[in-house]
Amino acid sequence: MRHRSYRRRAGRPQIPVDLPRSPRNFVLSQLRTHFERAMLMHVRNRSLHCKKHCGATLWHLHHRDGIRSRTRMYTLYSMQRSGNCYKVRLALAQLRIPYRLVEIDILKGENGTPEFRAKNPSGRVPLLEVAAGRYLPESNAILWYIAGGTPLAPDDRFERAEALRWMFFEQNSMEPSIGAAYFWLTLVRGGRDLKMHAIEGWTESGYGALGVMEEHLETNRFFAADRYTIADIALYAYTHIAEQAGFDLSGFPSIRTWLRRVAAQPRHVTMEWSPTLLEAAG
Amino acid sequence: MRHRSYRRRAGRPQIPVDLPRSPRNFVLSQLRTHFERAMLMHVRNRSLHCKKHCGATLWHLHHRDGIRSRTRMYTLYSMQRSGNCYKVRLALAQLRIPYRLVEIDILKGENGTPEFRAKNPSGRVPLLEVAAGRYLPESNAILWYIAGGTPLAPDDRFERAEALRWMFFEQNSMEPSIGAAYFWLTLVRGGRDLKMHAIEGWTESGYGALGVMEEHLETNRFFAADRYTIADIALYAYTHIAEQAGFDLSGFPSIRTWLRRVAAQPRHVTMEWSPTLLEAAG
Repeated sequence: MRHRSYRRRAGRPQIPVDLPRSPRNFVLSQLRTHFERAMLMHVRNRSLHCKKHCGATLWHLHHRDGIRSRTRMYTLYSMQRSGNCYKVRLALAQLRIPYRLVEIDILKGENGTPEFRAKNPSGRVPLLEVAAGRYLPESNAILWYIAGGTPLAPDDRFERAEALRWMFFEQNSMEPSIGAAYFWLTLVRGGRDLKMHAIEGWTESGYGALGVMEEHLETNRFFAADRYTIADIALYAYTHIAEQAGFDLSGFPSIRTWLRRVAAQPRHVTMEWSPTLLEAAG
Repeated sequence: MRHRSYRRRAGRPQIPVDLPRSPRNFVLSQLRTHFERAMLMHVRNRSLHCKKHCGATLWHLHHRDGIRSRTRMYTLYSMQRSGNCYKVRLALAQLRIPYRLVEIDILKGENGTPEFRAKNPSGRVPLLEVAAGRYLPESNAILWYIAGGTPLAPDDRFERAEALRWMFFEQNSMEPSIGAAYFWLTLVRGGRDLKMHAIEGWTESGYGALGVMEEHLETNRFFAADRYTIADIALYAYTHIAEQAGFDLSGFPSIRTWLRRVAAQPRHVTMEWSPTLLEAAG
């Protein structure tokens, strides 16, 4: 029960790096960053187990609603240049959750095939296969599903509501304006001409959303629970590419500082990153 | 501890209506509907208490994260003809949670006053004051906050994700199309002329959203967890007034059946209803 006494220590605990290399102690000794320690501190009433001395330190942590293991690996249907899909890849990377990635190129109509429509009738990505034949769409619902029980998803009643508040705001006020502008103006060939009538509306509501975010960030480091959470991941996805979509962030100094703060979080990955690319590089 | 033995009974418990009229037994005896029994069955590790023999049977139930009582009554800032605000009034009525209602008429600019902006910088309703000076915006975040720990908010990991999935869908695909059309075409004088350029987009995405809902409802009675939840409340709000916004529901038979199913739930209230009106009528 060593991890229990570890949990009871106040402040930042020292990791007992000189413990004998039992499976559990090996896992503990791998938790070197403050983020990883915080992860462990929050995984309550669960035990650590590691079938062999593998490098995937947190993959085998008990999760609130079950045990994640390689036998229940997620499959993520994702488009690399979609901000909604990037959210999920970023959270999975920061939580060190392994998954299979299936690239679905919407621009080539790969979301319209009968095979994909059978998985998700709305034809949207991201789509997470959480168990054999069980599919979950909607990026922010996926974030809650994968991050539940970790520090990335607040558990306190009001803090959870705050995170939800900003994630609903993101899907209602930011994604339909900045997300749509990014899609049509940077990804779709000829999209600017096709959507000329919509640009004024996107601009107005996009800057409106940025204004609300700026005001919050003037007095807060993050969006909810006074720490980095999935609410920040959700809002980061389209904000960090807003300038590509024609939005000028020079008048939003607090947002620009927050963007750097998010990018500096442990195990941050860029939108270009994918586990496939990592494997290819390795 | 009578309520504990009550909770242990399998299936639909019989309510001991002939118990002596102690405060607790009076509350139990009032729980006549299946919905109310289910409410009680799900309120675990809490006790019933009732300071006097009042009719508000469930108002005094301990809640997961604290005790709701008249001393911590919510204040809801709401506009009567807003679908987003109706969601919250409907859930509060079905959960029998008392609250103070403050009408904010957006059409008269009452959301733009310095007093209201100090409460919610985005100027939106609904806005829930959950404690003195603590405000929560975003209708669907409010639904999770008030319904947490009740059968209206699924607690199982995947069912919770399903409910979230449909609630994010609602804010991303339905509210910006059917909600916007309802607002501009039925509430704002001259709104049709002002928003002529947007109507085609609303129509396309609104019917798209209705199509996704229809497909789900062809094989499901409700949206999540195989029962009536806050996901249904969220989607009902704008769907039940879609025809007023110019959408023809005759091609969506499963949606029309579901609308009647939702309206038949215990303690359903219409969009016109408000506790103020009830008090005025009483």
